[in-house]
Amino acid sequence: MPRPFTLFTGQWADLKLEEVARYASEWGYDGLEIAVSGEHLDAWRWDDDAYIAERLDILERHGLKLWAISNHLKGQAVCDDPIDFRHQAIVGSRVWGDGDPEGVRQRAAEELKNTARLARALGVETVVGFTGSRIWQYVAMFPPVPAHVIDAGYQDFADRWNPILDVFDECGVRFAHEVHPSEIAYDYWSTQRALKAIGHREAFGLNWDPSHMLWQGVDPVGFITDFSDRIYHVDCKDTRMRMGNGRAGILSSHLPWGDPHRGWDFVSAGRGDVPWEDCFRALTAIGYDGPISVEWEDAGMDRLVGAPEALRTLKQFDFAPGEQSFDAAFSKQT
Amino acid sequence: MPRPFTLFTGQWADLKLEEVARYASEWGYDGLEIAVSGEHLDAWRWDDDAYIAERLDILERHGLKLWAISNHLKGQAVCDDPIDFRHQAIVGSRVWGDGDPEGVRQRAAEELKNTARLARALGVETVVGFTGSRIWQYVAMFPPVPAHVIDAGYQDFADRWNPILDVFDECGVRFAHEVHPSEIAYDYWSTQRALKAIGHREAFGLNWDPSHMLWQGVDPVGFITDFSDRIYHVDCKDTRMRMGNGRAGILSSHLPWGDPHRGWDFVSAGRGDVPWEDCFRALTAIGYDGPISVEWEDAGMDRLVGAPEALRTLKQFDFAPGEQSFDAAFSKQT
Amino acid sequence: MPRPFTLFTGQWADLKLEEVARYASEWGYDGLEIAVSGEHLDAWRWDDDAYIAERLDILERHGLKLWAISNHLKGQAVCDDPIDFRHQAIVGSRVWGDGDPEGVRQRAAEELKNTARLARALGVETVVGFTGSRIWQYVAMFPPVPAHVIDAGYQDFADRWNPILDVFDECGVRFAHEVHPSEIAYDYWSTQRALKAIGHREAFGLNWDPSHMLWQGVDPVGFITDFSDRIYHVDCKDTRMRMGNGRAGILSSHLPWGDPHRGWDFVSAGRGDVPWEDCFRALTAIGYDGPISVEWEDAGMDRLVGAPEALRTLKQFDFAPGEQSFDAAFSKQT
Amino acid sequence: MPRPFTLFTGQWADLKLEEVARYASEWGYDGLEIAVSGEHLDAWRWDDDAYIAERLDILERHGLKLWAISNHLKGQAVCDDPIDFRHQAIVGSRVWGDGDPEGVRQRAAEELKNTARLARALGVETVVGFTGSRIWQYVAMFPPVPAHVIDAGYQDFADRWNPILDVFDECGVRFAHEVHPSEIAYDYWSTQRALKAIGHREAFGLNWDPSHMLWQGVDPVGFITDFSDRIYHVDCKDTRMRMGNGRAGILSSHLPWGDPHRGWDFVSAGRGDVPWEDCFRALTAIGYDGPISVEWEDAGMDRLVGAPEALRTLKQFDFAPGEQSFDAAFSKQT
Amino acid sequence: MPRPFTLFTGQWADLKLEEVARYASEWGYDGLEIAVSGEHLDAWRWDDDAYIAERLDILERHGLKLWAISNHLKGQAVCDDPIDFRHQAIVGSRVWGDGDPEGVRQRAAEELKNTARLARALGVETVVGFTGSRIWQYVAMFPPVPAHVIDAGYQDFADRWNPILDVFDECGVRFAHEVHPSEIAYDYWSTQRALKAIGHREAFGLNWDPSHMLWQGVDPVGFITDFSDRIYHVDCKDTRMRMGNGRAGILSSHLPWGDPHRGWDFVSAGRGDVPWEDCFRALTAIGYDGPISVEWEDAGMDRLVGAPEALRTLKQFDFAPGEQSFDAAFSKQT
Amino acid sequence: MPRPFTLFTGQWADLKLEEVARYASEWGYDGLEIAVSGEHLDAWRWDDDAYIAERLDILERHGLKLWAISNHLKGQAVCDDPIDFRHQAIVGSRVWGDGDPEGVRQRAAEELKNTARLARALGVETVVGFTGSRIWQYVAMFPPVPAHVIDAGYQDFADRWNPILDVFDECGVRFAHEVHPSEIAYDYWSTQRALKAIGHREAFGLNWDPSHMLWQGVDPVGFITDFSDRIYHVDCKDTRMRMGNGRAGILSSHLPWGDPHRGWDFVSAGRGDVPWEDCFRALTAIGYDGPISVEWEDAGMDRLVGAPEALRTLKQFDFAPGEQSFDAAFSKQT
Repeated sequence: MPRPFTLFTGQWADLKLEEVARYASEWGYDGLEIAVSGEHLDAWRWDDDAYIAERLDILERHGLKLWAISNHLKGQAVCDDPIDFRHQAIVGSRVWGDGDPEGVRQRAAEELKNTARLARALGVETVVGFTGSRIWQYVAMFPPVPAHVIDAGYQDFADRWNPILDVFDECGVRFAHEVHPSEIAYDYWSTQRALKAIGHREAFGLNWDPSHMLWQGVDPVGFITDFSDRIYHVDCKDTRMRMGNGRAGILSSHLPWGDPHRGWDFVSAGRGDVPWEDCFRALTAIGYDGPISVEWEDAGMDRLVGAPEALRTLKQFDFAPGEQSFDAAFSKQT
Repeated sequence: MPRPFTLFTGQWADLKLEEVARYASEWGYDGLEIAVSGEHLDAWRWDDDAYIAERLDILERHGLKLWAISNHLKGQAVCDDPIDFRHQAIVGSRVWGDGDPEGVRQRAAEELKNTARLARALGVETVVGFTGSRIWQYVAMFPPVPAHVIDAGYQDFADRWNPILDVFDECGVRFAHEVHPSEIAYDYWSTQRALKAIGHREAFGLNWDPSHMLWQGVDPVGFITDFSDRIYHVDCKDTRMRMGNGRAGILSSHLPWGDPHRGWDFVSAGRGDVPWEDCFRALTAIGYDGPISVEWEDAGMDRLVGAPEALRTLKQFDFAPGEQSFDAAFSKQT
Repeated sequence: MPRPFTLFTGQWADLKLEEVARYASEWGYDGLEIAVSGEHLDAWRWDDDAYIAERLDILERHGLKLWAISNHLKGQAVCDDPIDFRHQAIVGSRVWGDGDPEGVRQRAAEELKNTARLARALGVETVVGFTGSRIWQYVAMFPPVPAHVIDAGYQDFADRWNPILDVFDECGVRFAHEVHPSEIAYDYWSTQRALKAIGHREAFGLNWDPSHMLWQGVDPVGFITDFSDRIYHVDCKDTRMRMGNGRAGILSSHLPWGDPHRGWDFVSAGRGDVPWEDCFRALTAIGYDGPISVEWEDAGMDRLVGAPEALRTLKQFDFAPGEQSFDAAFSKQT
Repeated sequence: MPRPFTLFTGQWADLKLEEVARYASEWGYDGLEIAVSGEHLDAWRWDDDAYIAERLDILERHGLKLWAISNHLKGQAVCDDPIDFRHQAIVGSRVWGDGDPEGVRQRAAEELKNTARLARALGVETVVGFTGSRIWQYVAMFPPVPAHVIDAGYQDFADRWNPILDVFDECGVRFAHEVHPSEIAYDYWSTQRALKAIGHREAFGLNWDPSHMLWQGVDPVGFITDFSDRIYHVDCKDTRMRMGNGRAGILSSHLPWGDPHRGWDFVSAGRGDVPWEDCFRALTAIGYDGPISVEWEDAGMDRLVGAPEALRTLKQFDFAPGEQSFDAAFSKQT
Repeated sequence: MPRPFTLFTGQWADLKLEEVARYASEWGYDGLEIAVSGEHLDAWRWDDDAYIAERLDILERHGLKLWAISNHLKGQAVCDDPIDFRHQAIVGSRVWGDGDPEGVRQRAAEELKNTARLARALGVETVVGFTGSRIWQYVAMFPPVPAHVIDAGYQDFADRWNPILDVFDECGVRFAHEVHPSEIAYDYWSTQRALKAIGHREAFGLNWDPSHMLWQGVDPVGFITDFSDRIYHVDCKDTRMRMGNGRAGILSSHLPWGDPHRGWDFVSAGRGDVPWEDCFRALTAIGYDGPISVEWEDAGMDRLVGAPEALRTLKQFDFAPGEQSFDAAFSKQT
Repeated sequence: MPRPFTLFTGQWADLKLEEVARYASEWGYDGLEIAVSGEHLDAWRWDDDAYIAERLDILERHGLKLWAISNHLKGQAVCDDPIDFRHQAIVGSRVWGDGDPEGVRQRAAEELKNTARLARALGVETVVGFTGSRIWQYVAMFPPVPAHVIDAGYQDFADRWNPILDVFDECGVRFAHEVHPSEIAYDYWSTQRALKAIGHREAFGLNWDPSHMLWQGVDPVGFITDFSDRIYHVDCKDTRMRMGNGRAGILSSHLPWGDPHRGWDFVSAGRGDVPWEDCFRALTAIGYDGPISVEWEDAGMDRLVGAPEALRTLKQFDFAPGEQSFDAAFSKQT
């Protein structure tokens, strides 16, 4: 457009924010999409002015800006069922507490409210994250799942998120849900239904990340134009398809990331099959002028090599549109 | 070859076995693959000679034979985690009992042993079914799942099924696992690993059902030749793909069977995308001469119309191979 | 479902209605979709009770019924620009008159109003047809066409058809426009815009004919579900694609129907690439229970051979849906 | 059209002609394409009137006619290099003689001349067959093959076949070369070059058999229209592609026919991937009204089942074209 | 080869030639393909030596050369029917005159003759352009178009262009028609027929521009080799396909360039789906050593960014062929 | 990884080794894969210490290293039948001798043994090359080839190569056969069978060169993982597919390299259709850390331009893998 490029810090939570900022700055990023994760951000300190100032100062020192923050991991726990060892590993001790599932869900919801407050304090209008889902576990639909169970899952999502979104509205902040397996909205039609469940309230929109759509066969370009009024944020991760040999399966056999027998894998942006050219043109067409955030993830590549490369690659697609129709020029006659 | 054709009774459990037998006989089937389900078969009565005789008599009266029986629903409960309302609906009150998960699993295992004994009593050598899985729920691999959890899932499968398979060995019966989502082996590489987990013991083989492979992108033809020594039984269900429009997703949005927005659906055999011609030729090539069992399932079609049609359609692919090479004939000169 | 099957008489206008009815009856059709064309139907005699009775009597004598009539040829002239020798050949002398373009358009519009009245007189609720278009001629968009010209084309369509549709409303009849090149709505997005231009008034819906969508790359199945409330009638014509050799072009080089160098051609239903199975299932899914009308057209086949064959072929896709979910049967346990 | 259907006797040479005729007649074939092979036909007896009468009598007794004869096996030896055990097995002792390669080639050429004379004696105008090739062995082009060697191969073909074709011209008979690997013309561009080598003389045309084109990626439909003036005969064999799994190779690993690991295989006509509908329409478009000969070959199917099935299947594509344009009917107005 | 690269000035007609030359020179272009359009070139001043010198001087000052000029817009009017507001906008007042269609056509023809004379004066041998077409408007073939109308369209083209081409012959200049919708030759078979209509006279050849072929499904590589003796000039424009989602149609719904709902769009060379690598190799194979002209058009990109990028991208495909066969080197032994 | 990059000297045998070394060094290669061909290396001087030192000195002077040597041309002659002018051109006068086929084969075998000794003397552990094949000539399988002939071909390979491999074992060197048409192992299943014929002895492995797999439809990525313990060396040549227009055939019509009518051609690495990204990731996954050798061959490009470009291109795929799982970082919480 050109639009600002940010680095999502979620996959760099093993480093201090300061260090991530230094890298991002050196590589030419314009800002960070800071995760409420690890040492990077603490949502419960939203009303600690000194903390807020200190965090912002890190950015400023490295010439970086902030357009959005994220809280995927605690969002995951808001609706999830079951709550288990996987959540214990990602929600932090404050939300996990005694591990009672309903307690975990409620404390996670509380943290999401605080994340909205934190966003306001940091001066940003968008929180990116996950919703979790009570019904994701039934995705295979076998053993048989009655329709009312599915209905109740969408209702549960609405019941748990509406109070959170009320706080978002109070703060003038919007939540951008990342359409993703394991969540209430993970593909095209589940996104439609989730938006309907929540009454299409404006506080709830989408974080467009094409990597999860690609392997599901969902067109990320059409997604942009069809949900044009809900694209609140953009995360760029790439997926490389390896299907077609009759042995790799789309569900990937419980194999770890990077295993060559998988049917697909996440790769550094530009090395996969996401049609970035069409995606960026569609983002321009709907008028998206927010940040382009690189969510860097590639089990087969050193991140210190890949993260700056992804920035260079994606910038090639972020060009300014023309100012006039070419036919117009072509036909300028006297 | 020609091979015998049977009708799987699992989807007809709302009817009495007598009635299903009557239909199957009228439509020209050679036999039934009777499910230990509903009124059709009760595994716990394996040592009741009168019961066995009465069941066999039903078949005989309709000119049908028995090559295999199945017990998918209780097999599902052997390894599953969680055990919930979905299992309660399918395992029957005897196995469900008080619903304590571990108790359900153990009673299900007990019923599987009895199913082997029942098979022997009925004079058949194959039991078709499911295994369940402790790790299926983690198929999305997010929230992150450590490798040791996956390893433990395959070990749990071996630990629970080895004692069952010991009884199969005693009875001279083999278990044919249906490769299927929700189970320990659901695609190519998970089948390889499950077979390894169980030490490739001969009592454990596969029920080849292409419908679950097709939408996962697994080639059902190559599956036959690669696992040629493990194809113990054949179930024919068809899948119709509806992907490619960028909105239908491969995970199908929690939509019910028959919904036109799904990315794929089960349909009457011959109306989907299974390459039956190649599949039957491959079955002939590996020397499979067991029954071809029609597992009829199509949410958009009346089963009384579809089940006889599927038989007619599939028989077109079950032709005898030639007795000589044609080059040989071509070059017979004097 | 099963649904009634009719034969569209447009391509049989060289025969008397009586003769077409005899053929259709012998071949097993349930009725006719009679074209206001040739000797078949005269819209200007809508208020001639004897004429109406005589026409209906022909059907009755052959055991046929009437669900819809059509008037493609005069509909074409309502908006077309230019009006030329092609229209002269198809609109009949009454509408052609002195050939003055605007006069032709207005007389064509008048005949369309009479067609609504004729439908009411004949006891049917649907008139199938074309709209014509002032802007079709600019489809190549070169020489450059300003946006306001396109806008004006949709407006012209609304201006000319709203008065016609008023008469339809008075008569309790609906117009089913056939999405088709040369018309105002010829693909997905032009259909959306045409419906918007006309305010989505209920009198104006669609005649779903997949043959024109197929070669344009428009998915006829998604069209059914996306425009589910506008599918007022179904015409079945098939298209066979012959693209892919790098020489056949999608625009077909001004070659006549049947020329083997064309990129695609119309063929007898069932001999082309329309995914009839999916289409009929989608029609069932949206609850369409109107007639399935065979519009038979194949430059390479004798119509007396093809028309009965098309009926037999299409009936294979018109099966009744099941009455219950199969999972339900599968899981019926005690 | 309809056109006559014949059965090619080459793959039935282990049976007496009488027996093949009886089968063909029972199955509904209109005639035979008799191979100069086995007991079926002996080219060296072309001037033995009693022999000719006796052969024709066999056909007459079974109500069969003769449109063409073939001599693939001796044609193969005319240009081949090397001449080895494979030729010994197929050319018969008279042509093989002492096995000296050049002697075999010349005796094979002599038999081809006699085959033209035999055709005249039998009252047919077409001889189907192979040419052999001196350069086929170099198809891999490695070790490197200089251009002059390839040039010389085409010249050798011309040098050896022109004298044969002179006899064909004398007899008023045409040779229809089957485009086929191992021959001088085996794909599109080699056919163009072979025709050029022979000066496009009219005595030399093509036997269109799509099965060999399909796996090479040559479009059999475009072949018909591009070589429309050289399609002298039609042999229908089908090929089923099994590529796409990354392991089956297009060269098929020296595996025998019928092996499931092959990348493709010959199958009964209608069970493979030949686009018969388009092919027959193209044959009609170029005005081909000669015989449709079924060359039946399928290593996975009993020929007594397959040969009548192939006839039934192919006849579905042999329909009469319409007598008028449908637009014409559509627009017949008064 | 390397070949010279030029910038086509048609889409820069809003700028003065001087300014376009300055840009092109800075970006590294070798020359311009100047359009007889806007201020760039005036065909009616072909005999004004001072004008010619002044124009050539602009090029020389910027180190640019001239290999071809173009006159698309007036060529369009030579055969077009109807002549309307679209032509008024592009032909200039001198050709438009009073707007009488036949007068416009004749004045356009006159300008084309002058363009040949202008080419001679400028010292170039090639004029690129359009022909227009009387029958393009009938491309949909509905309402039905009799064959004689199509025939007459090709004859009209010959009648109007032969006198123009006579002048080209006199001037020693050749016309390179750009195969393009709206013209007499717009795809493969229409090009064949147009060449035949004009008797394949040498004065009439083709401007190969792959962008218009791509979306029609015409292979631009095969076009080069099949029409190798008629490729007089090369224009490089790219097309990006966006089909395949079932909603975008190949005719693009009258949507403007750049609209994300279109089925395809023109984009900066190298950002679309033209197989440039194969195209340039084919151009080398047929010995084309003329200019490679960048026709830059991309509704979603700033031309000042795109035009230099396109040059860089295309130059990567314009490499020198090797001087020897590699097999030769590989096998050089002693 | 990064891995060392070498230039294969086979296609540069017209230059002196010194000159090739100078080029390779200037372009940034790390070493050479020197062919026993031309002046580059003489296997019969393996025990001439001064010669060995002189050869190694050339490398050292240019800062290059040696990881493997190759001897394709003499390997070709070990099993080939027939032995003809093609071999005479490539094996050198010492091996050719009097040209008696069996003598040539035995002398070629002797040179291969010496090549192992030469490798040891040069300090490398891998010899890359071809095997030749007695049965390649029968790849078309027509005229019919009995199974025992094929069996004998694999046996002949084993009989001739086992003694050679014994010498390899003595020398501690491994032979890496390049899977390639004309050889005993040229695709997936023939590789499996060849390995079996030789008892999977460790001395015999594979030189993975994807260019020959690609056009045969063999997946080079799956080849790496399936034969992971046999990938002894990597040669990078690229293949560009040009199939799909219905005229280009996969066997390429005996057309020379570079002819635009061929169905595929070898091109500079990175300009073809080899999925290098997936290939390099698979090589990393199996732990291959040997040299990446560029076998440069492109009939349409100057090698002095292409060879350095190929190096630059391929290095983009040779990145270091990450050190940790990203999920791990993502979930690092406190």
